[in-house]
Amino acid sequence: MKQIGWIGTGIMGKSMCGHLIDAGYSVSVYTRTREKAEDLIASGAAWCDTPRAVAERSDCVFTIVGYPYDVREVILGADGVLAGARSGSIIVDMTTSEPALAEEIAAEASSRGVAALDAPVSGGDTGARNGTLAIMCGGEQAAFDRVRPLFERMGTNIALLGGPGRGQHTKMCNQILVASGVVGTVEALLYAYRAGLDAEQVIEIVGTGAASSWSINNLGPRIAKRDYDPGFIIKHFIKDMGIALAEAKRMQLALPGLAMAHEFYKAASAQGLEDLGTQGLYKVLAKLNGIES
Amino acid sequence: MKQIGWIGTGIMGKSMCGHLIDAGYSVSVYTRTREKAEDLIASGAAWCDTPRAVAERSDCVFTIVGYPYDVREVILGADGVLAGARSGSIIVDMTTSEPALAEEIAAEASSRGVAALDAPVSGGDTGARNGTLAIMCGGEQAAFDRVRPLFERMGTNIALLGGPGRGQHTKMCNQILVASGVVGTVEALLYAYRAGLDAEQVIEIVGTGAASSWSINNLGPRIAKRDYDPGFIIKHFIKDMGIALAEAKRMQLALPGLAMAHEFYKAASAQGLEDLGTQGLYKVLAKLNGIES
Repeated sequence: MKQIGWIGTGIMGKSMCGHLIDAGYSVSVYTRTREKAEDLIASGAAWCDTPRAVAERSDCVFTIVGYPYDVREVILGADGVLAGARSGSIIVDMTTSEPALAEEIAAEASSRGVAALDAPVSGGDTGARNGTLAIMCGGEQAAFDRVRPLFERMGTNIALLGGPGRGQHTKMCNQILVASGVVGTVEALLYAYRAGLDAEQVIEIVGTGAASSWSINNLGPRIAKRDYDPGFIIKHFIKDMGIALAEAKRMQLALPGLAMAHEFYKAASAQGLEDLGTQGLYKVLAKLNGIES
Repeated sequence: MKQIGWIGTGIMGKSMCGHLIDAGYSVSVYTRTREKAEDLIASGAAWCDTPRAVAERSDCVFTIVGYPYDVREVILGADGVLAGARSGSIIVDMTTSEPALAEEIAAEASSRGVAALDAPVSGGDTGARNGTLAIMCGGEQAAFDRVRPLFERMGTNIALLGGPGRGQHTKMCNQILVASGVVGTVEALLYAYRAGLDAEQVIEIVGTGAASSWSINNLGPRIAKRDYDPGFIIKHFIKDMGIALAEAKRMQLALPGLAMAHEFYKAASAQGLEDLGTQGLYKVLAKLNGIES
């Protein structure tokens, strides 16, 4: 595990890959828009023109891209990772993506003597930058054990939750909780607004007990300041909730709270707010109630 | 502020009143069922036969009873606190009750030269026992300042949020957050169940980041053990959500997440589950999905 491949150098991937370079690993990199890899190249990463080329020179290839169809292309495509992956190597997809796709990748990889892990993360750009991500992994124990030292460069809360797809499923549990957290935060602050309360004072007193959540304590103050800049962008959250609802449907599971949150976020998108942070849901429910935001 | 009155010695009131006795205050007590006051009487509290009699000998009377109609009776009733309250004394209602009733009590009290505070709490039986409650107060600053040393025997996070009713309104914000927290926790754990994940493992990895909440970290493990014993009982929570929704209606505010949670808790009641803890919502959504719980 000396030659590492990295595919996808967006806001998350760039920081995560940087930690591996800092730790002395030899890294090959590919991303759709080469400019986004320039900082990593300057730090010593070797550029490759395709995911396949990355895989050909790597013991372990990480991918963290946008949507499930991107995962499919960079891993299973003609010039994808699997086309170049050496027998005995490992593919680790850290994109938040479909559990079923993770299972498909693991099966396809296995047939070529390659191991695959699904390992989506939580903790956002700050967690990526500080190396404090939660990493939720699905796959085989042996592969997990081999990759673990690399995960430890990126995160502090790392677990193998089961076989292929179980990392993605766990991330879906995470996103279900995030959805309800934002809904509660937004509704509580709308109530506070109508009741003539000071939002920051309310957050301070409710944020320590049974009502406390990451959402009220972190997104609440941003809403109070009408700061809708993204930590986590609405359009990616809509993707994640869509995956969770599709999986829930497949598993014969009704999740009314998640479905409702998804609908209101679709309204956010309809209103052109999809590049705001998830706390932008406040604007949607404010508008619904004829409140300025 | 030496002679203190206390009305309502349920699971919360008994601990809270006990802290005042322990601090050396002289306490008169009344509660509907005298047996529930025996421990406090044994600790030195003087029994009175009516709220009125309590008020006649007190500088400050605390009430913490069940429902808004109980508050109305013990404070505004013929044998209620206001009938006996001395000019210059203070009434502090710590029940979670209606903001409009708090305003009515404050106005009625004011006309008799008595101050009134609404000061509902958060933190549950544990917070009451340990003196670590959050106390959300509405009313006049001068009265708040006088009562503050007594609040400090009961809680650690104490704030005056505005005039009469603003403590109750803040508690409603708290309960809106609690509602969404439980919904998210329940849905995430149902998803985990269907996906074949270990609930405790999931809670451990999602409970530290953007998905974290008091609910997933405290109610989640109880659900994982199918422990539905009450910390906070469903029927009281239904009362609180009912107050919040009635106030929201009055303020022309649609809160779809809260309304949905309230509906599912009404289903819990319909299924005879109203004496379970709030985490009993898991049983409702499990049944909805044909899952054993």
